[in-house]
Amino acid sequence: MSTQDGSRPMQFIANRDEDYAQWYVDVVLKSKLADYAPVGGCMVIRPYGYALWENMVAALDGMFKETGHENMYFPLMIPESFLKKEAEHVEGFAPECAVVTHGGGKKLEEPLVIRPTSETVIWSMYKKWIHSYRDLPILGNQWANVVRWEMRTRLFLRTTEFLWQEGHTAHATEREADEEALRMLEVYRRFAEDYMALPVVCGEKTERERFAGAVRTYCIEAMMGDRRALQAGTSHFLGQNFAKAFDVTFQNESGEHEYVWGSSWGVSTRLVGALVMGHGDEKGLALPPRLAPIQVVVVPIYRKDEEKARVLEVAHQIHARLAKNVRVHVDDRDQLKPGFKFNEWELCGVPLRLELGPRDLENGQVTFARRDTGDKGTVPLDALESEVPTLLDMVQTGLFDRALEFRENNTCTTDSWTEFREQLEAGGFVYAHWNGSGETEARIQEETKATIRCIPFGRQPEAGKCILTGEPSEGRVLFARAY
Amino acid sequence: MSTQDGSRPMQFIANRDEDYAQWYVDVVLKSKLADYAPVGGCMVIRPYGYALWENMVAALDGMFKETGHENMYFPLMIPESFLKKEAEHVEGFAPECAVVTHGGGKKLEEPLVIRPTSETVIWSMYKKWIHSYRDLPILGNQWANVVRWEMRTRLFLRTTEFLWQEGHTAHATEREADEEALRMLEVYRRFAEDYMALPVVCGEKTERERFAGAVRTYCIEAMMGDRRALQAGTSHFLGQNFAKAFDVTFQNESGEHEYVWGSSWGVSTRLVGALVMGHGDEKGLALPPRLAPIQVVVVPIYRKDEEKARVLEVAHQIHARLAKNVRVHVDDRDQLKPGFKFNEWELCGVPLRLELGPRDLENGQVTFARRDTGDKGTVPLDALESEVPTLLDMVQTGLFDRALEFRENNTCTTDSWTEFREQLEAGGFVYAHWNGSGETEARIQEETKATIRCIPFGRQPEAGKCILTGEPSEGRVLFARAY
Repeated sequence: MSTQDGSRPMQFIANRDEDYAQWYVDVVLKSKLADYAPVGGCMVIRPYGYALWENMVAALDGMFKETGHENMYFPLMIPESFLKKEAEHVEGFAPECAVVTHGGGKKLEEPLVIRPTSETVIWSMYKKWIHSYRDLPILGNQWANVVRWEMRTRLFLRTTEFLWQEGHTAHATEREADEEALRMLEVYRRFAEDYMALPVVCGEKTERERFAGAVRTYCIEAMMGDRRALQAGTSHFLGQNFAKAFDVTFQNESGEHEYVWGSSWGVSTRLVGALVMGHGDEKGLALPPRLAPIQVVVVPIYRKDEEKARVLEVAHQIHARLAKNVRVHVDDRDQLKPGFKFNEWELCGVPLRLELGPRDLENGQVTFARRDTGDKGTVPLDALESEVPTLLDMVQTGLFDRALEFRENNTCTTDSWTEFREQLEAGGFVYAHWNGSGETEARIQEETKATIRCIPFGRQPEAGKCILTGEPSEGRVLFARAY
Repeated sequence: MSTQDGSRPMQFIANRDEDYAQWYVDVVLKSKLADYAPVGGCMVIRPYGYALWENMVAALDGMFKETGHENMYFPLMIPESFLKKEAEHVEGFAPECAVVTHGGGKKLEEPLVIRPTSETVIWSMYKKWIHSYRDLPILGNQWANVVRWEMRTRLFLRTTEFLWQEGHTAHATEREADEEALRMLEVYRRFAEDYMALPVVCGEKTERERFAGAVRTYCIEAMMGDRRALQAGTSHFLGQNFAKAFDVTFQNESGEHEYVWGSSWGVSTRLVGALVMGHGDEKGLALPPRLAPIQVVVVPIYRKDEEKARVLEVAHQIHARLAKNVRVHVDDRDQLKPGFKFNEWELCGVPLRLELGPRDLENGQVTFARRDTGDKGTVPLDALESEVPTLLDMVQTGLFDRALEFRENNTCTTDSWTEFREQLEAGGFVYAHWNGSGETEARIQEETKATIRCIPFGRQPEAGKCILTGEPSEGRVLFARAY
């Protein structure tokens, strides 16, 4: 499977331009982010992938708590009848459910579904907890696993079981609930752009793409390396739909009983897939420093034994000096050549490599290589504590800028059906006019395999003609083929 | 349900001496640690309970990482056939399983069980990953939910679904695997004693109480407030049992193929129940400062409006000064009287209360009250940053000492069957001789409802006669009624 002599890359990964899907699988498996599980459609998240997810969880959880949210935990198994209480919800989720029919050796009186999402069980509890306006708002979040039976699965992007967070909030007024949904979308945007270094388009889903049970669904959409779109997070204004389904009312300040207003919002381990495809290149992963499990790898270089001791000593000194503020790793494996190690850490997407050889020692420096640009240079040994964080910031910004430039270069605005089709065929984002009808949307999807990713926030009002039907349109929406 | 005038406790909780079981439920529900879920045997962990669990997770996870472990994630659903590969394992767990028979609207070809524990699926992956001694050890851990169908459930102590961590390690030698199991038991002991402030007895389980599939099971046992024992954590030396069941071999340094050696170990949300019962008293919870979601509550006291502004201002100054190092909360609710607040925060087990009234302000001090002893005193305002952490340390130690003294006062060593029975009937720990037979163990349980909690580590070799049969014994074991 691999030669370990450094003469060529240890790990073969498919050519990204020729077979993007295989490239993706190769990168995920060979960087050891994840592996296929023995259960169809499921995956095992390996330590490197889980460490990445932990960093994502820590950042998001911090942002949720800053905005006043508290974590809770609701049960995995939900009575089947609960799902049926919200008409659209059951229609959307029932076909995807895994069903527990037996427990403790006996057939259950009522089957239980493994949660595909937890609105129903959570609103059944909110009914117990909410009586007066004084009990509101409830700003809850849950970190959990969910199961959705999928036909075609792909590691991280679409797996039968996945990890996610699901926020579920309850409010006294419509406005508060909608503001909450928008606030959390903004949290997701900040996370995607500031941590994942992925620029996103924020907007509202069309009715056809809306969450089953929501009044409005907001989303962030990112462009992947093959120019397809990936929905990276959604937040839903639920109106009073779940409050009505579970009869959750409160007494307002005037003493009247009203239904409670709700929101829900979630992101999942799918975001790991977004990182792989959003930044990966022919060498493998490229991870943003703010999330990378290893931000800096130090590779000692020596040929003779008398060099080895000196080089390793300084390498470990560097580790000790940086470890306070940086996630740093010294690759002191003895049986492998530096070139092999370079390839391996590039495959794993480590943002910054420090090479330390006898000549570097003589010059009191290390040689660095950035994962994003491949740029190399040197840093004086005594300036490492200040220079390394600066270089990491540059990689973080560099990845964002590269992704933004790529998106801009692959986005067009058109009123021509021919250009519209060609652009979608070639891949990319297209802003075009649409008459607002779900039927038109479905026909466009049939013809182009593209969907409306969102009605972008802050779009210019612009009178135009629907790209398919020529009927009047009030503004452009974003089309793309999507994961 | 409650009067909010401060004249008597807001929340009625059952008398702890008269009805310990009801006291437990009242404390859990009324301090809002958890609530009953709509699915039988399951619970909802509310924000206060989840914050407590998060603090436990953070401490344990840090200790696991310090000892070289990495987190991973394995699937929730396990093929039923996997369970059957290890004979004792399936016998132990199959009767407790929840079974998924349908997914995506279709009947599954092979039913899937919801993991009751993950040895089987993890060892099926270790087979893929382990080839050479270079691949060992694998030091894995997983934070996850598991399901065990239980007949009698109790919030936190025994719920159909619970949250836990399960460590699963693979080693090249028997000695390493056993050392690992013992190392992790020591981590659990440190966590129980240093964080939970609960003294524990460490030892080995008898064959009858052993984990299904283990060669040896080690455990920590704590005494609860009703003098019953609670198993607070276990770690298992698995020998080569799962390696053989899943055919996991490796090539050793001599080029020979050997089966891999394993360990597994886990603690769960049951520990929240242990905290409630280990420290709780007639007023409710008493949480150790190192784990308490709120370590210090500041209660402002004022009668007139002109006092209010001044008191609240200083209360918030105190918050700002302490918040860097202490989890502090100001209870500035206006409609509630101080006495009511005192009761509520005592019910919730907050370790330290600071009262701030006009007279305190005049004297440049706050009045403090310790949750463990009820001791009150004053601290000069300008010494808060140093004095509050010291007081919290005193509460941490105070809780441990109180629990240790209680355990010592309720532990006896006896060779008299009458005393043995009486002590177990009254509640408490008993060290007694045992002939080493499972049949004797079973008969003792029938007669006394007590089980052997463990064969304590470091016990004195002592020739004696079995408490039941009079047959020879080499040393004493620990008996108690247990949760």
